[in-house]
Amino acid sequence: MSAPAEPARAASAASVPAVPVVAEPVDPTASAAVVDLLGLVAYGELVAFDRMAADARLAPDLARRAMLSEMAAVEIANYRRLADRLTELGVVPGEAMSPFVPALGSYHDSTEPKDWLEALTKAYVGDGVADDFFREMAALLAEPDRQLVLDVLHDSRYDEFAGQEIRLAIAADPKVANRLSMWARRLVGEGLSQAGRIATERMTLTTLIASGFDDQAGVQVLFKRITAAHTVRMSAVGLNN
Amino acid sequence: MSAPAEPARAASAASVPAVPVVAEPVDPTASAAVVDLLGLVAYGELVAFDRMAADARLAPDLARRAMLSEMAAVEIANYRRLADRLTELGVVPGEAMSPFVPALGSYHDSTEPKDWLEALTKAYVGDGVADDFFREMAALLAEPDRQLVLDVLHDSRYDEFAGQEIRLAIAADPKVANRLSMWARRLVGEGLSQAGRIATERMTLTTLIASGFDDQAGVQVLFKRITAAHTVRMSAVGLNN
Repeated sequence: MSAPAEPARAASAASVPAVPVVAEPVDPTASAAVVDLLGLVAYGELVAFDRMAADARLAPDLARRAMLSEMAAVEIANYRRLADRLTELGVVPGEAMSPFVPALGSYHDSTEPKDWLEALTKAYVGDGVADDFFREMAALLAEPDRQLVLDVLHDSRYDEFAGQEIRLAIAADPKVANRLSMWARRLVGEGLSQAGRIATERMTLTTLIASGFDDQAGVQVLFKRITAAHTVRMSAVGLNN
Repeated sequence: MSAPAEPARAASAASVPAVPVVAEPVDPTASAAVVDLLGLVAYGELVAFDRMAADARLAPDLARRAMLSEMAAVEIANYRRLADRLTELGVVPGEAMSPFVPALGSYHDSTEPKDWLEALTKAYVGDGVADDFFREMAALLAEPDRQLVLDVLHDSRYDEFAGQEIRLAIAADPKVANRLSMWARRLVGEGLSQAGRIATERMTLTTLIASGFDDQAGVQVLFKRITAAHTVRMSAVGLNN
């Protein structure tokens, strides 16, 4: 059995060549980007709640169903914090979120899990990549938004649960690894495709990233780092990238 | 516009003739009944979470969708407390819950809301009656289970939200009152039918109620009181019983 998932996260910072990638916290005049980022994360939480709550029905027993339901409920608690912050900034949360409804809807519609293991892999892989991305974004924000975004990253307790379920399933039937690895690749592919859509449509966010990460070269390093962390996370549960 | 829903709750105790209905806290030997009651409430929370999370998709906008999602998330937090208590009592939560899967499943399957107002009415009416019932049951338990069951009753903040939405909808179109009143009657009918099923199948619970409420006469008074509170709650939002 592989190492637990937590070290994979820690490795993400260490295993990729470090370059100076984090610029100054965003200028207050760039608040449109902050609102966009908070809106994106908030809607991500709301829709993840909805999908995980539905996926909980795929659980093989009541205890596991409850566990995924609890993972879903954490998303909605985080949603509330983000929505409150948006309100504090004078923005109606629904308006900050609405630009991201199509992209996140497409992502989830095209990656509807067929069974329990696909649901867990989606939570494990999707949340992992999204968290890494938002952790990088948080570094570009001024307080209190920086800490808020860091706070709403997923609880490693649930990653552990998902990772453990995947490892056990592979131990019981090694063929599962192949199927779930393919599924994870599809998740990442669809996720990247929708991320590209958001990048094209929301220039505020793209500009935030580009200026925060020293333009093209820095952004490439950012993506390499996120990809490397994803690979480590996959191996940690016995999946191939 | 009618009074808010909260006074309806308070009225439930006052508006029906008081009789001596609460017997001694349950004997420790009656712990099978306690486990059954905690299992019933726990599964009620789990399945209510599932259905409300799904119903949130019916919301007309993101703010309302988030609100119902948050209502759902409260259920799962309560579920965790009940499951932990069952574990503490040496009972596997899934085993305590499983006897109630068919009855609660039938209730929800036969009362799937078609739209946002039906979903809210279901939360408002169904949670209201269930809370009143479990509040009465709590009085039959010893501590800490008595307080635990009281703690997991629904937050009146969410009743207020649901009640307000129903009142506004009726104010905008009085015909809505008729439709939702019929829907509420169906909810209560299906609920009673499944409660009867549980009463027949789980003699521990039936015995707890019968002994706690001084047998037949006391049980009838209990049901009258719950019915009266339901009627007050219905009128508070402009619905007819």
